[in-house]
Amino acid sequence: MALRWPESISELVNQLSRLPGIGEKTATRLAFFVLDQDAAYADDLAGALVTVKAKIRRCSACGSLGEEELCDICTAPERDRTSMCIVESFADLVAIERTGEFRGLYHVLHGLIRPLDGVGPEALNLPAIAQRVEGLGVREVIVATDPSVEGEATAMYIRNLLDDDVAVTRIARGLPMGGEVEYADRATLGRAISARERLG
Amino acid sequence: MALRWPESISELVNQLSRLPGIGEKTATRLAFFVLDQDAAYADDLAGALVTVKAKIRRCSACGSLGEEELCDICTAPERDRTSMCIVESFADLVAIERTGEFRGLYHVLHGLIRPLDGVGPEALNLPAIAQRVEGLGVREVIVATDPSVEGEATAMYIRNLLDDDVAVTRIARGLPMGGEVEYADRATLGRAISARERLG
Repeated sequence: MALRWPESISELVNQLSRLPGIGEKTATRLAFFVLDQDAAYADDLAGALVTVKAKIRRCSACGSLGEEELCDICTAPERDRTSMCIVESFADLVAIERTGEFRGLYHVLHGLIRPLDGVGPEALNLPAIAQRVEGLGVREVIVATDPSVEGEATAMYIRNLLDDDVAVTRIARGLPMGGEVEYADRATLGRAISARERLG
Repeated sequence: MALRWPESISELVNQLSRLPGIGEKTATRLAFFVLDQDAAYADDLAGALVTVKAKIRRCSACGSLGEEELCDICTAPERDRTSMCIVESFADLVAIERTGEFRGLYHVLHGLIRPLDGVGPEALNLPAIAQRVEGLGVREVIVATDPSVEGEATAMYIRNLLDDDVAVTRIARGLPMGGEVEYADRATLGRAISARERLG
């Protein structure tokens, strides 16, 4: 007779295994950790999971995440309303905010155009951009999607979506700070050379 | 103004960060994954966490985990009741069951003796062993704790706890199968030589 794993443990391992980067082995370790803790921990984590889904909503203006109708950035009077940064996800927005280099508004797409997966512009928070740019009088749109095939395609789509009098820019692509020319991949190094910048 | 992370997201990241091996960065990635899924996933995971804590109990005989008063192994008529394997945790029990090399009963300690952390034998499922061994008429007790300082100390404690007419054995310690002599650590290789086995 093989050991029958208790049903409620298997179920927890299954649910934990659905998390990205968590295989069955790690899920099992996490499940045993939860079993070893007071019931309060399982309750707190369970509560946090349910609460986050109940409370978090998309900002009705930019699509960022928050607990109110409009997000903190859209309602902040000191943000520059003539500049808009377009990102794939809220996580990308947070990463850019941390740099402190951008003081304008955001627009969160919640994905990239992926024709092969059947994800077109209308499946994303993309069609609203043109009207928002016009309404706010945005003069520069910075497209900060990943430098991937989908990220570049989405950037081109946005360029074509907007009037020519709006400056559409793309985040710089090249060698990462601290990177080494010797170990850079060919695409990155090629890009770094073709998009070289004049000094002084 | 720095970006104020929505309260319910911070709370979920905090709770996830308490899991072993999950830092703040991974917890953030997991939280965004949960946000991207249907609410059903958060509900299912939350339910599994609460259910596992509510349903799982220790077997009143051996201390293994299950959903009944007695575990499947203690109630299985075909298990050899003259042989008992002592393990630190349910996870260790599962690992040994997977080998298919042991057909007796278990006894789960739920920890090892750690005097420096104030964990003595009475804090573990240890005092019950002597009575259980006598009651069942166990002839061999295999101590399968880790080959660590605490694991060895716990094994010695168990040897002293039991009558001399009970054979107390220890799982073999030596080079792992597939290991290489050249790369073995000194303690393991020293042990492998001093505990060498006669061939043929």
